[in-house]
Amino acid sequence: MRSKLFHGNSNSSLGGGDSRESHGKRTHRATDSVLADELLAYLEATPERTTAERLLITSGGMQGLDLAAKLFVDPGDLVIVEAPTYTNGSATLLAYGADILEAPIDDQGLIVEALPDLVHQAGRVPKAIYVIPNFQNPTGTAMSLERRHLLLDLARKWGTIIIDDDPYGMLRFGGDHIPGFRELGGGDSLVFSVRTFSKILAPGLRVGWVDADPAIVAKLIDAKQTMDTCTNVPNQLLAAEFLRRGGLEPHLRRLRSEYQRRMMAMQTSLERHFSEQAAWTNPQGGFFLWLTFGEHVDTSKLFDLGVPNGVAFIPGRAFSVTGRFGNALRLCFASQTPERTELGISRLADTLRSL
Amino acid sequence: MRSKLFHGNSNSSLGGGDSRESHGKRTHRATDSVLADELLAYLEATPERTTAERLLITSGGMQGLDLAAKLFVDPGDLVIVEAPTYTNGSATLLAYGADILEAPIDDQGLIVEALPDLVHQAGRVPKAIYVIPNFQNPTGTAMSLERRHLLLDLARKWGTIIIDDDPYGMLRFGGDHIPGFRELGGGDSLVFSVRTFSKILAPGLRVGWVDADPAIVAKLIDAKQTMDTCTNVPNQLLAAEFLRRGGLEPHLRRLRSEYQRRMMAMQTSLERHFSEQAAWTNPQGGFFLWLTFGEHVDTSKLFDLGVPNGVAFIPGRAFSVTGRFGNALRLCFASQTPERTELGISRLADTLRSL
Repeated sequence: MRSKLFHGNSNSSLGGGDSRESHGKRTHRATDSVLADELLAYLEATPERTTAERLLITSGGMQGLDLAAKLFVDPGDLVIVEAPTYTNGSATLLAYGADILEAPIDDQGLIVEALPDLVHQAGRVPKAIYVIPNFQNPTGTAMSLERRHLLLDLARKWGTIIIDDDPYGMLRFGGDHIPGFRELGGGDSLVFSVRTFSKILAPGLRVGWVDADPAIVAKLIDAKQTMDTCTNVPNQLLAAEFLRRGGLEPHLRRLRSEYQRRMMAMQTSLERHFSEQAAWTNPQGGFFLWLTFGEHVDTSKLFDLGVPNGVAFIPGRAFSVTGRFGNALRLCFASQTPERTELGISRLADTLRSL
Repeated sequence: MRSKLFHGNSNSSLGGGDSRESHGKRTHRATDSVLADELLAYLEATPERTTAERLLITSGGMQGLDLAAKLFVDPGDLVIVEAPTYTNGSATLLAYGADILEAPIDDQGLIVEALPDLVHQAGRVPKAIYVIPNFQNPTGTAMSLERRHLLLDLARKWGTIIIDDDPYGMLRFGGDHIPGFRELGGGDSLVFSVRTFSKILAPGLRVGWVDADPAIVAKLIDAKQTMDTCTNVPNQLLAAEFLRRGGLEPHLRRLRSEYQRRMMAMQTSLERHFSEQAAWTNPQGGFFLWLTFGEHVDTSKLFDLGVPNGVAFIPGRAFSVTGRFGNALRLCFASQTPERTELGISRLADTLRSL
């Protein structure tokens, strides 16, 4: 594969071109298919099983979201997002001119039952609904199966694209698997699924994938050519080799077990220091939990005091385009040992007292 | 550096966030600065010398062009491009709704003297002018110094951004250095310079950089976060290490010498087989030359016949948004040995006879 990294072309060519110039539709697959093939083989035994025609390798999940917005969102289009939601997800929607409507979530994820009223008030159906169904960023909650079915029904009724962003689904450490939109949709062209190696292998690789209707994937290939030509090759080969050697499954088992241990440690620390001042979520997977204080606590101020005190977190306002959740914050349990989590949470409690 | 690849965060943080979420403006530089520092040191001894505030590491030159279009081009904006020009360059401008105006080039590059009349006819000044000043894709020509000065003058008069795409400038193997727009502009905020490791190291790395006004770079950082978060880290470190070890300069010397040898071999083969049927350019650097037949030759048909005959090239129409240059084609001299170039050119001559 080494020669693929350099600008030599196939032996017969004096063209020296990339796939668009070469009139070679999807010739990029010659490179990308090494990873695509390994990924298809890996996914075969999972609920994410798919086909080559539905798969596009992307430069991380973020590019998957950027592609979704580029393809489906025109200025002024209504797009529903969870509130709170992933900052860069709503930011890329805004970059394409989306008119963002925030919909509430609870401990069963997006309150899908509330959408018809919201849409009625908005006076138009949404072009897209952006959801993180599993262990949502920032709250850590997962959408119930019932609501997933209901959301699919509404999407079909309205002709709305579901941007199904699921970086954490493979990191479930508690509870039962809930079928995802890709699985429930049965190939429905309204479901645009964004996946990534960032949370299960390494974010710095910038390697992810999109699973979508083949006709949409054909458009994505053209769009991606005008964005970064192709996804970087060495890290594709690295991920492919990791899959080929069977490294992912044991790695995921280790991550799930360790993240569960860390999540439980954070719960213990929170119980110890915040049982009377805050409420928080109890995720069954992923990276994050969400802490909500009484209305009078401003977590942006808490952040400013916390940093010199040796503790950092993400203030809640970062997760809302309308600046809501000023009394909440996101904690990441996945990145710290129980000892450091206890230290951080105790510092947070100290900081709160000084507020 | 290894830990940078994984999702551990700085020790004091329970945030687990990226730079946007973390309220940490430009904290991405903690990672990117390894390459940025080496690049600044390397460029210091070249005409491309710049400063940290002007530099953004990108996912290849293509992302630099995508960022330029995202920042400066709104639907309906007039953008002037060279005709012919780089396919994906005009494609990304079109993706942002540019109204593209093609301007002619000759063996001294873009005919800048023709622009005032074109602009007068268009009835408005361009928002941006997209140029590849050195060894242009697809023709291999370089813009003269006089025209560079003139283009800068016009850009200043009109308030037009010069998108200065220069992937090949370091690959000059003949003639004298011509100062580039970044150099001539003296930090002018109208000059947006796109650079890449793709043509001097390996395109599959997807690592490049933008050199622009610091106020613009600040906006680019936000825009890039919604596109791919950051440029993949392992290949940044690879490029940085290559620079640190002093590998680039001897590598460039080898490339220049070898590409000159290959270009001259292609000239010899073209003289042998096409001296009466075509005219072609004589580049002093880069990858490509441009072959023009009489009006009656259709190079798209020639392509269709050539491929089964064992020779490929890029038909001229691929380099024009209006489908011009149907009697021209692009050849890449850089990718083939003299022996294979002779074989390919002789096959091309056979194919032309059969047309």
